[in-house]
Amino acid sequence: MVQVNGNYLKLKAGYLFPEIGRRVKTFAAANPDAALIRLGIGDVTEPLPEACREAMKTAIDEMGTAEGFHGYGPEQGYGWLRDAIARHDFQARGCDISAEEIFVSDGSKCDSSNILDILGAGNKIAVTDPVYPVYVDSNVMAGRTGEAGDEGRYAGLTYLPISADNSFAAEIPSEPVDLIYLCFPNNPTGAVATKDQLKHWVDYARANGSLILFDAAYEAFIQDPSLPHSIFEIEGARDCAIEFRSFSKNAGFTGTRCALTVVPKGLRGKTANGESVELWGLWNRRQSTKFNGVSYIIQRGAEAVYSDAGQKEVKDLVAFYMENAAIIRRELSTAGLTVYGGEHAPYVWIKTPEGMDSWGFFDHLLNKANVVGTPGSGFGAAGEGYFRISAFNSRSNVDTAMARIKAL
Amino acid sequence: MVQVNGNYLKLKAGYLFPEIGRRVKTFAAANPDAALIRLGIGDVTEPLPEACREAMKTAIDEMGTAEGFHGYGPEQGYGWLRDAIARHDFQARGCDISAEEIFVSDGSKCDSSNILDILGAGNKIAVTDPVYPVYVDSNVMAGRTGEAGDEGRYAGLTYLPISADNSFAAEIPSEPVDLIYLCFPNNPTGAVATKDQLKHWVDYARANGSLILFDAAYEAFIQDPSLPHSIFEIEGARDCAIEFRSFSKNAGFTGTRCALTVVPKGLRGKTANGESVELWGLWNRRQSTKFNGVSYIIQRGAEAVYSDAGQKEVKDLVAFYMENAAIIRRELSTAGLTVYGGEHAPYVWIKTPEGMDSWGFFDHLLNKANVVGTPGSGFGAAGEGYFRISAFNSRSNVDTAMARIKAL
Repeated sequence: MVQVNGNYLKLKAGYLFPEIGRRVKTFAAANPDAALIRLGIGDVTEPLPEACREAMKTAIDEMGTAEGFHGYGPEQGYGWLRDAIARHDFQARGCDISAEEIFVSDGSKCDSSNILDILGAGNKIAVTDPVYPVYVDSNVMAGRTGEAGDEGRYAGLTYLPISADNSFAAEIPSEPVDLIYLCFPNNPTGAVATKDQLKHWVDYARANGSLILFDAAYEAFIQDPSLPHSIFEIEGARDCAIEFRSFSKNAGFTGTRCALTVVPKGLRGKTANGESVELWGLWNRRQSTKFNGVSYIIQRGAEAVYSDAGQKEVKDLVAFYMENAAIIRRELSTAGLTVYGGEHAPYVWIKTPEGMDSWGFFDHLLNKANVVGTPGSGFGAAGEGYFRISAFNSRSNVDTAMARIKAL
Repeated sequence: MVQVNGNYLKLKAGYLFPEIGRRVKTFAAANPDAALIRLGIGDVTEPLPEACREAMKTAIDEMGTAEGFHGYGPEQGYGWLRDAIARHDFQARGCDISAEEIFVSDGSKCDSSNILDILGAGNKIAVTDPVYPVYVDSNVMAGRTGEAGDEGRYAGLTYLPISADNSFAAEIPSEPVDLIYLCFPNNPTGAVATKDQLKHWVDYARANGSLILFDAAYEAFIQDPSLPHSIFEIEGARDCAIEFRSFSKNAGFTGTRCALTVVPKGLRGKTANGESVELWGLWNRRQSTKFNGVSYIIQRGAEAVYSDAGQKEVKDLVAFYMENAAIIRRELSTAGLTVYGGEHAPYVWIKTPEGMDSWGFFDHLLNKANVVGTPGSGFGAAGEGYFRISAFNSRSNVDTAMARIKAL
């Protein structure tokens, strides 16, 4: 009989966000008049930039003509988009990254899980705790872990706790690891890394031959000009890092779908037999064989992010959400809660009130304030006792939600 | 040091189409004045239907308002699109398939390779020879094969030859297999399967507990109303088949990107430990964790395929390409070549002239007629001595290409 991948059965409960969805649905069915405000899933709410919309409409018009029609595009993305990305997002910040090293895709979630396709089964893997669940679940599904223990931690993974105790900065693991997932600005804690902190990781990775998978999906929210937006701002990172970027959060593309992955040429790993292999070629082959590129229309929309008009609109969007984050920080502090993050990230990470765990606080806010957040424990055992509030919403929803929470 | 997936090193040469691309590029560089006509890659050329373009523009306008903005959508696709697909493509043909069993994606290439994620490593796998290379390469990359032999066949795979000798109908394998890739109308041979032929496969799969991966990307080109468009027109297929569909070829979405996969509820496989597991849940989990759904804008475009206007435009597109196929068949026959396919498929499969192998004929046509086709041997050892001509091009290009070939 056909055999299935039994590793899926190791996965604990549902993926965090579907579980939240189920609880919210149950509540909404029982309370049809409740005006729910969702500050849970990190999903943007404001209109798509006009520059992107206009560019997509022009692309659609082209597609209506024989001369302007575009069929299959390059699996790696169109050259004009890869060029714009390399120039604006990397070279302008002093990173030595070329267009050829940019792989355009339909999402960072896809890329950060698909990357395992080109990596071997024998890697020792480190993740922070709490962590974006996709990093862990994709490893479980690929059979790179053992079973989950009582706390939901999977055997075989190295967990690096981040909490208020260490200022949300993971320590270099004491035993050597081959693969390290880092996310800055951090989802879910909203923490950022300085150049010095990233340099420690790069130095460690180079010394150990490790690979850093660096998720920079939230880089646009960094306010302090001295903080790094890319791992490639750190010397030596080309030898030890792959970076994930997205148009989801800066340009509001969560429902439009475009992202990118940077794989430096010359970055190498070893096969189980010890043969040295360049990762760029493997990822290029993976994308050529298992992916057909992003819609021409959408790529034109993403390109418009880099136009003068697009850059201004994106800046305004980021400023808008960061003002939300500032309001959330201020109001929740006033309400007596301890808050972290939210200064260079669209997420505020709060300590749950005395005597209430993460899911308890979730149910409390849902039932009493009709506000949906995300339980910290859903991101890992060390997230227990924390709670994530997203700044992605309209101003009036943020104001109303804060007023309701303060009134509790 | 970080370990890479060494299975990639087993892959022979480049993926077929990049290899064609390289040869064409070299020729074009040496012959800048040659007016190349590309009948190689199966890529559509005619404008996108107006119904789809208008629907996408409306969706873009919605995305420019706070009320009409769409962020993350369901990873499985929007309900309205899944409904339309289930109703028009399946229920209207008597297939017992519900909207919940439809998973919308960005491409059949992705789906037909990603499906391996949920399948076990211990399956005995059968593919036809010749075959769409993605089925084989994705298995190689996932470590489900051994090394390639001299003929390019990978150890561990069961190859089912299809050629003029068996009327391009693969025989049921003599030794049991767990996983069978079938593609009808067939890429590359253009052959179709009758209901009786498919019933043999379904009966075999049910008797053996095998899973059929049925690629129906070209179903819209079927002209004979008695031929099945879906494996689910066959009784019992719900117990043994997954089907892949695409908007690429019927509605010209190769550069727009939308497709779907049908996973029937109740379809089951076993883990290595013998535990029975439903595949729907596994695929749902895979898509929820590793995919973020298709762009809202693009899904609205795909939905418009099912409008009255869209249906008419798609019918016209299919008729246009099938007229091309008829011209190719007629002209190449007149030129003395033996032709197959092209009657219910956009591909004409021709026997290469005496004394010329597939790549030899490729170079001959490229150099002498400036026409690009696809060498049959690129699809497998048993494709040697055959050559694929695609009907996807403008009428004038098809006419010119045929005139040039006849003049050789």
